[in-house]
Amino acid sequence: MSDAIFPARVIICEVAPRDGFQSEDQWIPTEQKIKIIRALANTGVQSIEVTSFVHPKAIPQLKDAEEVVKGIEDLTHIKFRALVPNVKGAQRAIAAGIKKLKLMLSATDSHSLSNANCLVEEAQRGFEPIVDLAQKHNVEVGGSISVAFGCPYEGKVPLEKIVTIVDRYKKMGITEVSLADTTGMANPKQVYQYLGVLKKEFPHMTFSMHFHNTRGMALANVVAALQQGVIHFDSSVAGLGGCPYAPGATGNIATEDLVHSLEEMGIETGIHLDRIIDVAKDVRNMLGHDGGSYMLQAGPCSKLSPKPTAQEKLEK
Amino acid sequence: MSDAIFPARVIICEVAPRDGFQSEDQWIPTEQKIKIIRALANTGVQSIEVTSFVHPKAIPQLKDAEEVVKGIEDLTHIKFRALVPNVKGAQRAIAAGIKKLKLMLSATDSHSLSNANCLVEEAQRGFEPIVDLAQKHNVEVGGSISVAFGCPYEGKVPLEKIVTIVDRYKKMGITEVSLADTTGMANPKQVYQYLGVLKKEFPHMTFSMHFHNTRGMALANVVAALQQGVIHFDSSVAGLGGCPYAPGATGNIATEDLVHSLEEMGIETGIHLDRIIDVAKDVRNMLGHDGGSYMLQAGPCSKLSPKPTAQEKLEK
Repeated sequence: MSDAIFPARVIICEVAPRDGFQSEDQWIPTEQKIKIIRALANTGVQSIEVTSFVHPKAIPQLKDAEEVVKGIEDLTHIKFRALVPNVKGAQRAIAAGIKKLKLMLSATDSHSLSNANCLVEEAQRGFEPIVDLAQKHNVEVGGSISVAFGCPYEGKVPLEKIVTIVDRYKKMGITEVSLADTTGMANPKQVYQYLGVLKKEFPHMTFSMHFHNTRGMALANVVAALQQGVIHFDSSVAGLGGCPYAPGATGNIATEDLVHSLEEMGIETGIHLDRIIDVAKDVRNMLGHDGGSYMLQAGPCSKLSPKPTAQEKLEK
Repeated sequence: MSDAIFPARVIICEVAPRDGFQSEDQWIPTEQKIKIIRALANTGVQSIEVTSFVHPKAIPQLKDAEEVVKGIEDLTHIKFRALVPNVKGAQRAIAAGIKKLKLMLSATDSHSLSNANCLVEEAQRGFEPIVDLAQKHNVEVGGSISVAFGCPYEGKVPLEKIVTIVDRYKKMGITEVSLADTTGMANPKQVYQYLGVLKKEFPHMTFSMHFHNTRGMALANVVAALQQGVIHFDSSVAGLGGCPYAPGATGNIATEDLVHSLEEMGIETGIHLDRIIDVAKDVRNMLGHDGGSYMLQAGPCSKLSPKPTAQEKLEK
């Protein structure tokens, strides 16, 4: 932190409608999903990951991807992105009007087999026609790497693996890669070290960070990334999320907690804290639970208690 | 973090027996307290804050201070410290055989009135005879400052207030001051900035940090303090703790979470992670709850899952 000048502003992408909703056991009705996304769009957030165009048998919770997108198409001030696992998904997303696709692969073969039933190399080959298709339709594509710091099957992921995967993304013409700590195994020292090398090796690549708070390290990891000049972060309202294939995974860092901490540090997010806390409450009411949210428990620092007076105390 | 060389080793003081137990509504039987302290003493921790010699009417949960100390007096490898609010408490602690006393005052008059029914200045005057008494008995004394970063009644605490209070401690001959974020209002940028000034103003003072995780910022604050070269931290097994007078306060950073994160960063604590997690489980079983512990929920990063095989997945 010593010589770091923290960025004045960061850009948050809200991922609860995809990473959160897909992890719920219960079916969330389409109109509820649309209602939450519309409420999120009113908080000041600039970017929302709205769904995944995945096979309905793989993730039935998101089988209504087209209808969800239809229900929010008038919200032109928000950048909507959607996850696409294959060409079919990309075709569906583009047909639905999505302007930004997100690719996802795992850093390790073990996690890739568990999550996508293929090896990392196979996943990468599958991305090439998606990128071609997107270019043809003038649609943006971002890459992502799950379990980028630690894998629940293989442990710590060596930096060289990440360098190799980012390089492959770069060769496909991709200029933005999200590094996901899918099961909360990253630590701040590692995040700082990995990003230091990655930013040097890939000076024109935009890195965004996706931290789960499984072991309580998410915010410390955000601060480490800030110290490396990263300004793009994913977070999830009410701390929803997790990976259905990653044992022990709990929620993403909660958007309201991230906004609160950044605001306390004097870093702008553009998101109104009171509004995002209200959405978090709605989400908790809707689902009957949250995914770990300090704001829902304690509220912001700025909410002070009435001062006691000496008189009051002396009368006790 | 850029030019910071993290310390190789930090020293943790376990505070659950004081800060945790005093916050419980239920009465914890003396023999249970002794059992937990004895289990803690077996984890590799070097220092434990065992109780507070406070008036039994003020904090009835700790009215058994003498009996607790009696029950652990054979554990000579551990440095036991106790909180003393006044001369009477100091006399009791010294008579019980405690070799390190901790003084506590608040950074703000509002919190001081609420917590100790006196102004900060009155609290400071009250410390002088305690320091004299301790010197006479060759007993160590450390100072502490509650709500050192933010006060639930007054908001952000100006750094100048802390400088003035530390200076007063220094003039009393005290060489160690604990900065307590009693209600979880500190942020990493503030911690880094405050410590930067304090370490420059008081180069011979040892600062220790006591962070509550009320708003999820405790670990990020620890990392910020590490980056300023601080190596003394308080934490509480199972995340117990809080201040009975501080509205909204939840637990201290959990010892098992702190040990886990530091270990992941390659920083030694001397505490066996598996043993401290076992004590946290015992504490949770004893009390019927914890105070927020990621290790109790998700377990350590090192606990990997069995690898899936391609074959298994293909047979699905």
